[in-house]
Amino acid sequence: MEIKNQKIGFIGTGVMGKSMARHLLKAGYEVLIYTRTRSKADDLLEEGAVWVENPAGVAKEADIVMTMVGYPSDVEELYLGKGAILENMKEGTIAIDFTTSSPKLAETIFMEAKTRGIHSLDAPVSGGDIGAQNGSLSIMVGGDEETFESVRPIFEILGSNVVLQGKAGAGQHTKMCNQITIASNMIGVSEALLYAKKSGLDPDKVLSSITTGAAGSWSLSNLVPRMIKGDFAPGFYVKHFIKDLKIALDSASEMDMRTPGLELALSLYEELAALGEGDSGTQALIKVLER
Amino acid sequence: MEIKNQKIGFIGTGVMGKSMARHLLKAGYEVLIYTRTRSKADDLLEEGAVWVENPAGVAKEADIVMTMVGYPSDVEELYLGKGAILENMKEGTIAIDFTTSSPKLAETIFMEAKTRGIHSLDAPVSGGDIGAQNGSLSIMVGGDEETFESVRPIFEILGSNVVLQGKAGAGQHTKMCNQITIASNMIGVSEALLYAKKSGLDPDKVLSSITTGAAGSWSLSNLVPRMIKGDFAPGFYVKHFIKDLKIALDSASEMDMRTPGLELALSLYEELAALGEGDSGTQALIKVLER
Repeated sequence: MEIKNQKIGFIGTGVMGKSMARHLLKAGYEVLIYTRTRSKADDLLEEGAVWVENPAGVAKEADIVMTMVGYPSDVEELYLGKGAILENMKEGTIAIDFTTSSPKLAETIFMEAKTRGIHSLDAPVSGGDIGAQNGSLSIMVGGDEETFESVRPIFEILGSNVVLQGKAGAGQHTKMCNQITIASNMIGVSEALLYAKKSGLDPDKVLSSITTGAAGSWSLSNLVPRMIKGDFAPGFYVKHFIKDLKIALDSASEMDMRTPGLELALSLYEELAALGEGDSGTQALIKVLER
Repeated sequence: MEIKNQKIGFIGTGVMGKSMARHLLKAGYEVLIYTRTRSKADDLLEEGAVWVENPAGVAKEADIVMTMVGYPSDVEELYLGKGAILENMKEGTIAIDFTTSSPKLAETIFMEAKTRGIHSLDAPVSGGDIGAQNGSLSIMVGGDEETFESVRPIFEILGSNVVLQGKAGAGQHTKMCNQITIASNMIGVSEALLYAKKSGLDPDKVLSSITTGAAGSWSLSNLVPRMIKGDFAPGFYVKHFIKDLKIALDSASEMDMRTPGLELALSLYEELAALGEGDSGTQALIKVLER
């Protein structure tokens, strides 16, 4: 089957999903879309996407069904619920979930898909809205190698760093490694900025000394300058980060793993959300420490 | 006064101090040295440094006295003790402490020096043994601007990122920001690697997905590969990191600052030292989580 002949269904065209679907349209694919609030898809429809009334309808028509929704519960309902997509996808088609979700659920979906002759990949991404816009996402994939290779050209339209990490669930596990790493680092950079302020230093000058060495990180270079300016607009929502950290913690607990940093980060972010900051960007963490 | 006519005294020629003194020799300075174990200075003496029998002797002869020792207690004894360097330095000379030490002690030394007509700078560095060897250290300086400017050419022999952060103590405070940032991040990268292993992922493959994005950091790129290989040789000693984190915590406590990440990191590193890993590199932290 010539790749461009594949009909792609995209369910969930929020900030991330919209940019991704747009890249597929630009690459010449026929893209069927469904998202909860139709008005949010208006621009994609103008750009050539085809509206479908419900997920089942997308599943019936598409050769590849992609999903990018919010929470594991949304993923579960979408894939496994009554009248949901696995029930309606054709044999031999491929389901790809870009949502950051539970590794265990990804395995369940893979098995359930398999019994129906459907191929499934978990493929969470990192790189945020900017990465989605630029097609420069890191895509962390779990599933069969053959299925992965068959859609690799499509992944490479969406991302610049596409890696098959292992079998079903491995994409989600990798994303958890990503979020676990970020979680503790956010505490460190927030404490460092607060220390700089309290000790009377010029935070920008401090950054000029410490970003290039062993303390250097993406968060230090990209988020601390926003903290300094008091810019707490979301690059990545606190509420979504909490969701991810909860998935990571559940998964780590099942593996009987010690995660003091992850637990501390989750408790601080929950404290932050309780302050009404769930819709702020993750850099708002400093507000918890400043209290 | 022409810079090269200045006679530099260097006290403490351990791993870091030795490389730094060597750069000064190569740049054409007369360098007087003293270090606790004379045999450790043999190569510097062969390269042209001049041995002096004690710190007081260095202080009496040098125009600029540099120190790079171990703990704040060493710094205190060296600068403020009986027969110590401030007592013996000539009026108008300059004392520069490169040791990572207490900000408060740096202020005390500055004031005590001032009453004697001596100029003092606190100038802790980051960049490790490699940075010292390459002359690519980040040097974070606290003290008077005039004094700083008068020795800036010398700092620039030793480091590639030289910043006057503020008044006396500001160099140490900046170094604390550096260490605080590293501390929590070390927990995050260790947990992420452990999670990767426990969930059956290939850690190198995980790194290929996560180092380039929002989880990226110096520690993730430079220390996690060593953890994966089981290479716990010290780039930076656990015991020295514990010293730094204690200074940071003392200082933060005085400022009545919330530092849950720093406290957690210190307790984990103390647990690690209690396992007999004080002389390992900081990347050994994963051993605590693996228990």
